[in-house]
Amino acid sequence: MLDLTSVGIVIPKSVHFDKPLHLKSGAVLDSYDLMYETYGELNETKSNSVLICHALSSNHHVAGYYADDPKSIGWWDNMIGPGKPIDTRKFFVVGVNNLGGCHGSTGPASINAKTGKLYGAGFPMVTVQDWVAAQVQLANHLGIKQFAAIAGGSLGGMQALQWTLDFPDRVQHALVIAAASKLTAQNIAFNDVARQAIITDPDFYGGDYCSHDAVPRRGLRLARMLGHITYLSDHSMAEKFGRELRNGPLGFGFDVEFEIESYLRYQGDKFADQFDANTYLLMTKALDYFDPAHDSKGDLREAFSAAQADFLVLSFTTDWRFSPERSRAIVKALLDNELNVSYAEITSSYGHDSFLMEDRYYHELVRAYMNNIII
Amino acid sequence: MLDLTSVGIVIPKSVHFDKPLHLKSGAVLDSYDLMYETYGELNETKSNSVLICHALSSNHHVAGYYADDPKSIGWWDNMIGPGKPIDTRKFFVVGVNNLGGCHGSTGPASINAKTGKLYGAGFPMVTVQDWVAAQVQLANHLGIKQFAAIAGGSLGGMQALQWTLDFPDRVQHALVIAAASKLTAQNIAFNDVARQAIITDPDFYGGDYCSHDAVPRRGLRLARMLGHITYLSDHSMAEKFGRELRNGPLGFGFDVEFEIESYLRYQGDKFADQFDANTYLLMTKALDYFDPAHDSKGDLREAFSAAQADFLVLSFTTDWRFSPERSRAIVKALLDNELNVSYAEITSSYGHDSFLMEDRYYHELVRAYMNNIII
Repeated sequence: MLDLTSVGIVIPKSVHFDKPLHLKSGAVLDSYDLMYETYGELNETKSNSVLICHALSSNHHVAGYYADDPKSIGWWDNMIGPGKPIDTRKFFVVGVNNLGGCHGSTGPASINAKTGKLYGAGFPMVTVQDWVAAQVQLANHLGIKQFAAIAGGSLGGMQALQWTLDFPDRVQHALVIAAASKLTAQNIAFNDVARQAIITDPDFYGGDYCSHDAVPRRGLRLARMLGHITYLSDHSMAEKFGRELRNGPLGFGFDVEFEIESYLRYQGDKFADQFDANTYLLMTKALDYFDPAHDSKGDLREAFSAAQADFLVLSFTTDWRFSPERSRAIVKALLDNELNVSYAEITSSYGHDSFLMEDRYYHELVRAYMNNIII
Repeated sequence: MLDLTSVGIVIPKSVHFDKPLHLKSGAVLDSYDLMYETYGELNETKSNSVLICHALSSNHHVAGYYADDPKSIGWWDNMIGPGKPIDTRKFFVVGVNNLGGCHGSTGPASINAKTGKLYGAGFPMVTVQDWVAAQVQLANHLGIKQFAAIAGGSLGGMQALQWTLDFPDRVQHALVIAAASKLTAQNIAFNDVARQAIITDPDFYGGDYCSHDAVPRRGLRLARMLGHITYLSDHSMAEKFGRELRNGPLGFGFDVEFEIESYLRYQGDKFADQFDANTYLLMTKALDYFDPAHDSKGDLREAFSAAQADFLVLSFTTDWRFSPERSRAIVKALLDNELNVSYAEITSSYGHDSFLMEDRYYHELVRAYMNNIII
């Protein structure tokens, strides 16, 4: 049956930029491609566009599905579409794959035009600021001077926040969901274990695995298993899996015994089959580096003084990766700057992953906020 | 300078048992050795002995140091000694390395007398109940009919608890510290990621790494790095490491950048040099399997109905591996059985590792409890 709230069949597009991009690391990308998708129609005054920024492992495919695969549903399809919280009857929505990604935008698995070879481990480190700088080029390409809203969860929320600091006149509203103003030592620790799993995999070959016809599957699998634990809450894992055994009595062996083991190993295997290891490394480093208050010695108020946008900040009660406490710190600093901030702590049992879930209160809040935007 | 509160130079002993041990898995150990140490003197009535059960990666060396290495201080030396909370002027303290261990007790790195070869991966799975059954043999060997107290933190606390269920007339007091009555799905998940890191290390050779002259260092290192994150609290990591950089400005590379990365990698490397991979696998499975309420369908009250001991249960506010909530559930079930229970939730910023730390209130509580024991 036709889903009238889906944006339907979508077609990814690619755009090439020849203007060099000067990265925070000091490296320069002479040219690069960005993959993106759009949903809805840009209005005449070009005032109705919404940019969606993706988190660690996702991409430009935010809503709808591809003609050749009805199951290829975008990662935030429950949020975006006709009649959905971010309503494509009102808004022109843009999804983009970030630089360093592995889904079409220039990244480690792309050919370096200078050398004619794969970038591989030679792809430069990218930061949230670099991503925003590249997204600005996409906005220019689409003729968008100002986004009505920029939204994202987790690392995506960090990009929305960064936009308001680097390009305050180009973003009217920022939706910063399940994010933090910087990673804690514990966050960095989890990322580093994941990276070490990949880097010490003998099939990693110093990042040059492609030319060895290898894939560091073991490392990617472990990284994903570990990541997954931090995306879920203790509570949601207990509810979903408890101590359920997969096959009757205890086996007293190292095969899967508990349901949670089966689930995690499956998630790990699936991820290892489809995600690029160098990209995973880059994305986790971008997370580690994000710290807009670094230059103001940790003073968030000063760090956010450039912002002019209105904000919707949302956190989830069981999110222990980026806990509500972290969102409250963002809200406080925004309020200290006398900005217009809406904030809600949403009761949800799904941990960090809550931002991807179809929680009624969560969606109604986003809907109300988006409906209220004047375009 | 002479430390008058140290038990001083200690000498580990080994005892051989020929009586077969029937394990929960159905396997039988025809004979086995246990390594142990003792501190203080057994009194004439043999009523003053205290058994210390170790956690995941430690062993029988609980207090004092070895003559050839003054730095080889036991893992709970701050708790045990003349004048310390578990006072060796009053108590005869016994430390034991559990079956499956890698510090002298029979385990994967021991020779299987039947085959004349290393057990390796062929060493049978052991449970907390099996450990207790072996510890009973050690008690018999030492002529101890009843322990004045059995104490342990984490997995060690689980053994203390198991003693009160399996041998209620042989334990007067149980000190169950930073423990839980069973693992949650999240706990099991962390263990399984650690196990998968070891098992998928190409140097693991299905557990037969010794005969390949290999050590699955990568896997052990990752397992330890991950474990370490769960032993510390978010708060203690933030306090100790924050986002401090190791070497000035950001390096935009995958070498150590943040202090926390340096610390974790160091801990991982050190562990990989000294711990046996098969033992690590066995210990984490023993944790997963521990669930005394399994036969009573989760009813802890029923599960604990056999217990007769008095209890001191302690938890630490920032322990997120086995949170105070988990200890409270134990306390409630013990109280439901009208047992004599003392309980305290100790404010500490050190997470699960708090049980190893020298916190004043914590130590004074243990001291008071131990002083009060009539021998």
